[in-house]
Amino acid sequence: MIHFKCEFCNLGQTADPLASFCPDCGEPLLVDLTTPLKRRIRSGATIWSRYSDFLPFSEVDAALHMGEGGTPLLALNRLTDRFRLPPIMVKNEMLNPTGSFKDRGTVVSVHMAKSRGLRRIGTVSTGNMAASTAAYGARAGMEVFVLVKEDTTEEKLLSTAAHGARLVKVAGDYGELGRMSFEIGKRHGIYFMNSVDPFRIEGYKATAFEIFEGMDPQAASAIVVPVSSGGHLIGLMKAFRELRDHGIHSAMPTFIGVQAAGSAPLARAFSEGSPHYRKWEDPATVAQSIINPTPPGGNLALRMIRELGGDIIAVGDDEILTAQRLLAEEEGLFCLPAAATTLAGVLALQESGRLDTHGPVVLVLTGSGLKNIRAFPVKPASVHSSTLEDLDGLISALTR
Amino acid sequence: MIHFKCEFCNLGQTADPLASFCPDCGEPLLVDLTTPLKRRIRSGATIWSRYSDFLPFSEVDAALHMGEGGTPLLALNRLTDRFRLPPIMVKNEMLNPTGSFKDRGTVVSVHMAKSRGLRRIGTVSTGNMAASTAAYGARAGMEVFVLVKEDTTEEKLLSTAAHGARLVKVAGDYGELGRMSFEIGKRHGIYFMNSVDPFRIEGYKATAFEIFEGMDPQAASAIVVPVSSGGHLIGLMKAFRELRDHGIHSAMPTFIGVQAAGSAPLARAFSEGSPHYRKWEDPATVAQSIINPTPPGGNLALRMIRELGGDIIAVGDDEILTAQRLLAEEEGLFCLPAAATTLAGVLALQESGRLDTHGPVVLVLTGSGLKNIRAFPVKPASVHSSTLEDLDGLISALTR
Repeated sequence: MIHFKCEFCNLGQTADPLASFCPDCGEPLLVDLTTPLKRRIRSGATIWSRYSDFLPFSEVDAALHMGEGGTPLLALNRLTDRFRLPPIMVKNEMLNPTGSFKDRGTVVSVHMAKSRGLRRIGTVSTGNMAASTAAYGARAGMEVFVLVKEDTTEEKLLSTAAHGARLVKVAGDYGELGRMSFEIGKRHGIYFMNSVDPFRIEGYKATAFEIFEGMDPQAASAIVVPVSSGGHLIGLMKAFRELRDHGIHSAMPTFIGVQAAGSAPLARAFSEGSPHYRKWEDPATVAQSIINPTPPGGNLALRMIRELGGDIIAVGDDEILTAQRLLAEEEGLFCLPAAATTLAGVLALQESGRLDTHGPVVLVLTGSGLKNIRAFPVKPASVHSSTLEDLDGLISALTR
Repeated sequence: MIHFKCEFCNLGQTADPLASFCPDCGEPLLVDLTTPLKRRIRSGATIWSRYSDFLPFSEVDAALHMGEGGTPLLALNRLTDRFRLPPIMVKNEMLNPTGSFKDRGTVVSVHMAKSRGLRRIGTVSTGNMAASTAAYGARAGMEVFVLVKEDTTEEKLLSTAAHGARLVKVAGDYGELGRMSFEIGKRHGIYFMNSVDPFRIEGYKATAFEIFEGMDPQAASAIVVPVSSGGHLIGLMKAFRELRDHGIHSAMPTFIGVQAAGSAPLARAFSEGSPHYRKWEDPATVAQSIINPTPPGGNLALRMIRELGGDIIAVGDDEILTAQRLLAEEEGLFCLPAAATTLAGVLALQESGRLDTHGPVVLVLTGSGLKNIRAFPVKPASVHSSTLEDLDGLISALTR
C-alpha cells in the first residue's frame, strides 16, 4: 500500500492511482515514505534498485527499462573560465532514451500502471512528455492517448506519432483540458500521467540522487533547473529533503528555478512573496517546452523552495538564445532553449551580483536541441560555397 | 609512437596523423597493437581506461569526454515473440552525446589531435559525423571545417552549425572531395577525421567490447550493423579479432553488415565473391546516412568479413521503413532509417530461412530518429480532433 500526502492540508491518504491531486485543496499529492526504516543508497544494477529505499517500488520492470538515468555530469570548463563563474557543471538529461528528463518520470508511472494491471495510459502535452509517454507506453504494449492543443503542428507531433500513440487535438482552454483529462481517464480506464503525477515526481528524484553521488565528496552548492509545471523542481527538492531527513546529507544545495520571462507565473509570485501564483496571460517565449500559464505544481513548488531556501527567476528570450549558443559553441552541448534557461539564469545572477556561491553549480540540461532544431538561428557567416578547384583557396582564406 | 598497418600490403608503418590511407595501395591504415603485452579488460572509470589495453592511449582527455559510450543493451522481447526470432537485443547507440555512434570515434580522433597540438580539425559529411565532429571540436576549443555536398539543405546542417563549425558547400564529385580533403588538410594544418580515420575506428571498437562484456556469460551469436563507408563494421570486427588474439574470447560472433538496396556496392561485391567493390551509380534510399557509392573502407570491410565469417546484405526502402516503425511502435525506440536496416536485415534473413543462429542477435542502432524526423510517415488514422465538450464521446469511441 502506497501512501500519499498533501503538503498543504498535511493530510495523509491512500489515493486512487488515477487521481494525483488532493481532494480537499486541489494541490498535488506526493508519495509519502511513511515506514520508519533507516534508508540508504544501495548498490544496484539500475538506478531504480540503487535508490529503492526512497521509492515506492523495489525495481522497475526490466522489460520497461530503456537505460533512462545514469546521465553524465560534466564540467563546463570553458564557460567557467570565460565568465569567471564558480565551477559550473551540467547534468546532461539529453542522454535519456527519448532525449529529455521526462523519461525518468515516465518509466516509473508506466511501471506503476503495469503493476496495477492498467492497459491504457495518457498524457496532456505537446512535446517532451508526449514523446516520452508514447515511447514507454509502446514498450509496455499499452494503448497511449495524447491530448494536445488544437493548433499543434504535425511536425511537433512526429516523435509521438512514431510510437503509434493516439493523438487528439482538442480545441479549448489548455488548463481545463489538463483537469478534464483525469475525469475522462477515470471513466475510460486511462491513467493520465501528467506533469505532476506523484509517481512521475518520484522518478525525477533519481536525478537528485545521482547529482548527490556524482558530486561526492564536494557537494553541489546550487542546482539550477527550468520550471514549467513545477513537477521536475518538486522532485529534485523532495529527494534532497529525504536525504537530509535520513541523515545522509546535511548540506542542502540552493535550488534555483528558471522560467522564461514571457511565461513566468512562478517567478512573479516568488518575487512578490505570494504563496499562490496567478495565471499568466498571453504567454510567449522561444522556450516552448516551459510555457505553462497555470502550472499545476506551481503553489507546491513555491512552498517547497521557500522552505528549503532558493529562488525562482525569469530570463528573456535573447538571454536564452545566447545561452543556447554558448553551450553549443563552447561546450559541444546542443540543447533546447528551455534547457538553456539554466545557463542564462546563472549568467544573469552573476551579472547582477546575486550568484551567492563559490561552490559548484549544477545546471540540469533538460532536453535535446534535436527536438526543435529549427528554433536555432544559423549564422550566415559560417556557411560558404566553393568548387573543388577553388576549395584550397577558400580554406586558405578562412585559415589566414 | 603509434604503429599503423595496411592489411593488404601487410606493411607496418608509422603514419602521418593527417593521412589515414596506405601510400602504396590506398586502402585504410589500421592502428597496430605491436607490443607483445598480454592485454585484458581493466577496471576503469570510463570506457576508455577500461579498454585502454587495446587502444593507442591510456585515457581520453577528461575535458573532452561527454559521456560517449556505455550505451544500453536492451532485449527486444516483443519483436522476438512476434516474429519468432532468436533473442534479439539492441545496442542503443542513439544515447551518445550527439545521438549517434559517431561520437565514440570522434572523441578518440579529437583526443589524438589535441595531444599532438593540432588546433584545426575537419570532416567530409552531411549528417551524423558532421554534427559529432562539430560538437567535440567545439568542446576542445578547436576550429572545425565541415565540407558538404553543394545541394545539402540548411536544415540538415543545423545541428552542425549550432556548434559554430565552418561549413563549406562544395560543387563536384563527393568521392573526389573526400580524397582532396586530406591534401587540403595537410596544406593548412587541418586534421580531417573522416569515416575510416584509424583513430575513429579505434573508438568504434569500444562498442564491441561493451557488447562482449554486456552479453556475458552468453555470447552474442550475431552482430548486425548498417554499412556505409565500412569504418564502423571494421572497428567492431577488429575489436573481436583482438579479443580472440589475446585469448579473451574465442566464440567469434557472425558479423552481418546491412546496406540499403538503393546504395549497396558492398552487398553486391560480397554476393559476387569479388574482393573489390565497384562504384554504385545513382544511389537513392530513405536511409540517407548510409549512402556512399565509393566507400573508402569497403574493400577492407569485405576482406575482414570474409576472414571472420559473415555476410553483407541489402534491404529495400519499404523493409527499412517497416522496421523503423516496428522498433518505435513495439519497443519504444525511434531510430533513423539507416539504423532500422539492422532489424530489416534480420527479418529478411528470417523470412528466407538464412538466419543461421539460435543464440542472441545484437542490432547496433546507430542513430536517433530525431535527426531526420520528417522521414517518418505519420499514419493519418492516429490523429483526431475534438472540442472539450465532445472529448469524452471521442475517447469513448476510441476505447470501444
